[in-house]
Amino acid sequence: MKYSTIKILPLFLGGILFSQSKQDSLQFRNIADEILVNGTAYKNLHDLTKNIGHRLSGSAAYEKATNWAVLKLKEAGADKVWMEEVMVPVWERGKESLQIKDQSGKWKSIRMLSLGNSEGTKGKNVEAEIIFAKSKEDFDKLSDEEIKGKIVFFNYAFNQKFINTGQAYGDAGKYRRNAASWAGKRGAKAVIIRSLSSALDDVPHTGMMKYDTDDTFKIAAVAIGPKSADELEKALKSQKVFAKLNSNCAMKGEKRSHSVIGEITGKIDNSVIAVGGHLDSWDVGEGAQDDGAGIVQSIEILRAFKKMGLKNNHTIRVICFANEENGVKGGNQYAENVKKNNEKHLFAIESDGGGFTPRGVAFVMSAEKRAQIQSWKNLFLPYGVYNFEMQYAGTDVEPLHDLDVPVAELVPDSQRYFDIHHSDEDTFEKVNRRELLLGAVTMGQLLYMIDKSW
Amino acid sequence: MKYSTIKILPLFLGGILFSQSKQDSLQFRNIADEILVNGTAYKNLHDLTKNIGHRLSGSAAYEKATNWAVLKLKEAGADKVWMEEVMVPVWERGKESLQIKDQSGKWKSIRMLSLGNSEGTKGKNVEAEIIFAKSKEDFDKLSDEEIKGKIVFFNYAFNQKFINTGQAYGDAGKYRRNAASWAGKRGAKAVIIRSLSSALDDVPHTGMMKYDTDDTFKIAAVAIGPKSADELEKALKSQKVFAKLNSNCAMKGEKRSHSVIGEITGKIDNSVIAVGGHLDSWDVGEGAQDDGAGIVQSIEILRAFKKMGLKNNHTIRVICFANEENGVKGGNQYAENVKKNNEKHLFAIESDGGGFTPRGVAFVMSAEKRAQIQSWKNLFLPYGVYNFEMQYAGTDVEPLHDLDVPVAELVPDSQRYFDIHHSDEDTFEKVNRRELLLGAVTMGQLLYMIDKSW
Repeated sequence: MKYSTIKILPLFLGGILFSQSKQDSLQFRNIADEILVNGTAYKNLHDLTKNIGHRLSGSAAYEKATNWAVLKLKEAGADKVWMEEVMVPVWERGKESLQIKDQSGKWKSIRMLSLGNSEGTKGKNVEAEIIFAKSKEDFDKLSDEEIKGKIVFFNYAFNQKFINTGQAYGDAGKYRRNAASWAGKRGAKAVIIRSLSSALDDVPHTGMMKYDTDDTFKIAAVAIGPKSADELEKALKSQKVFAKLNSNCAMKGEKRSHSVIGEITGKIDNSVIAVGGHLDSWDVGEGAQDDGAGIVQSIEILRAFKKMGLKNNHTIRVICFANEENGVKGGNQYAENVKKNNEKHLFAIESDGGGFTPRGVAFVMSAEKRAQIQSWKNLFLPYGVYNFEMQYAGTDVEPLHDLDVPVAELVPDSQRYFDIHHSDEDTFEKVNRRELLLGAVTMGQLLYMIDKSW
Repeated sequence: MKYSTIKILPLFLGGILFSQSKQDSLQFRNIADEILVNGTAYKNLHDLTKNIGHRLSGSAAYEKATNWAVLKLKEAGADKVWMEEVMVPVWERGKESLQIKDQSGKWKSIRMLSLGNSEGTKGKNVEAEIIFAKSKEDFDKLSDEEIKGKIVFFNYAFNQKFINTGQAYGDAGKYRRNAASWAGKRGAKAVIIRSLSSALDDVPHTGMMKYDTDDTFKIAAVAIGPKSADELEKALKSQKVFAKLNSNCAMKGEKRSHSVIGEITGKIDNSVIAVGGHLDSWDVGEGAQDDGAGIVQSIEILRAFKKMGLKNNHTIRVICFANEENGVKGGNQYAENVKKNNEKHLFAIESDGGGFTPRGVAFVMSAEKRAQIQSWKNLFLPYGVYNFEMQYAGTDVEPLHDLDVPVAELVPDSQRYFDIHHSDEDTFEKVNRRELLLGAVTMGQLLYMIDKSW
């Protein structure tokens, strides 16, 4: 590629300078320069992922991560850092295996992961014939006779036609959440689902499931990789296939844990503008994109603002939420405390879509505020950030919306996230330094605008 | 004027516009669905990178790649496939090494790559003290005495402040292209440059250099990784450092080779709408992002159009150019033949920025045509493609602009490209399936619009 001939229309940039405040444009540039040149987010992410690794709520690793976050917020220059107590569920995986046997008569191990919060087989072998359903609709057509005593296998695939892979994740999500209840209620012994993955490899992905409150029998629920899923579906078309599942995962009550919070005090008042991610991860991989990225980006913004001496009008707060993955206890507790203490919040944004190149910001807020943010679009365009149309918010900041706080989520490029999400593949090596930093740039720029405008 | 006419007219026109854009919208969706669901580009890229690997023009691997391209274009359903003869330079690397010695007195090997088309040391050790220049301006301040007999080391870094890394590449590019001539003319024995890389790792990147035509002494020119470069700069601040360079690279004349071309015949005429990439790569890594991606994307468009039975008005042509990396002989020869044969071309686009998520298309064409393409922007937005402002074109299609052909280049997300470009790291594993396919979607949609409109 020859880039020497690149010309960006001078009018394009010039127009921005004339139509928006030149000062805002310059401050956007300063924020970007500070983060792209001096940013420590990538180094921090290396530290978090390689020295602590995955960190499910309730685990010892998570507790290490809370101490790490306190340290990093202090290093970044926070005026105040504290831990916010929250009770989190404790779920442990333990040893687990899945074998299948077709007409060849030989048991063959396949890669699998029990779904988060599921009850497993309590160390016993659960062995049964597999019955196949492509979708819930197919499953509903099966008779109780066909289901009873069997292991139900759902092979509902990610819909590749969605451009935003988050939509495909949403579309397939009910299988991970509900399959165990659907199948358990009709007498199945266990359930196997195709992993919620945009890739076509053989990596299994975990993630939260939930038993219906009226479930008498909590059957085991596991995910297998897309390749194994397709092979299993193919085998089932011509023959009987049996599965033997053994797992030790179980819920083990609750535990006192913490979200970690740091802030720069506002020059004018204590109204809070919050940015965060979740400090916990699933118990596989390194929780790098999900959501180490959101954590180090949020800390990066605090570091950059402090280093630049930005003198924010309102309090800029970084929240490292506990327990997003298997309970959202951190996010709910935070909103509860805000309500109890009647603490004014102007805005809260989360980064939980991975540290990929930012493309926009999604919002849940009044039409008026939305329009105001959209009016800043030309300031963001030189940074490749153009999409301010989506309406959703980060899982951990969403509870604040009930208190009428405008909430948001960073919208990074979505193509690679669900290839690795909740799997052993979510490692530091999957994160690109500049992409990660650019996400912090976008949120930093937005916080700057909100701080001066609201 | 009757009010009834005023009311009816806009509705009537609106109806036409709506139904046309609705039809285009549907066709955009069909093209995306076909490529995202049935696309073979990723599989083809695996085949090219793993079974052939890197393929510098003039090498045996490149010749294998031409046969591969013929086969793949036929498989994709091209009505006609042929090879276009072109004479290409032959440059061979051979064994090479770089050692440095500081005041510790011990020689230490560092990772390096000779720059493409450079002459090397002809297998002899070239040993000298290193003299450092941060930039050309610093170099110009050095006296001839200071330079003569030394090995000059330039440590000009990628400017991380550019949001589009292509601009940083353009900015640093002159060091790779010209450093040997600058230093050679002033009596230096060899030149070492910091690799043109956005990463901060220790991976060396090669790429084309050029001796000035009046160069009497063609000195060796090598690149080292960013980390080694920074360490070397640091060492040079406090002590004398010596380098020992040995390399065998050399230009070895010319060779007859080929670009590979395939097309679907136009329904109405033989005017050509061209899409392509370059089939050659550097002699390191696997040439996956640069530019296996552009090749398989272009073939993918032909496959999808054929499969969909799109019935293009004009000829849709895929060009797999020879020798982009170290001569652009393929692109120049193609334009020369077009001129000689007076072959009408409506448009030509190249994909040579890697198979990353597409963000836009850059153009070099008349203001009128540019405005027309920009008027289609809303059709592209649902696919995350929003930037139609940049003015440049692919290196291999640029020569067609001299014949007044509107030329273009796909603009993918630029953040990861220059981490791996021209290095051992440019492997299949660095390519994401959906990102790759989406690039083909964007170009396919654009070709569809141009085919129906021009």
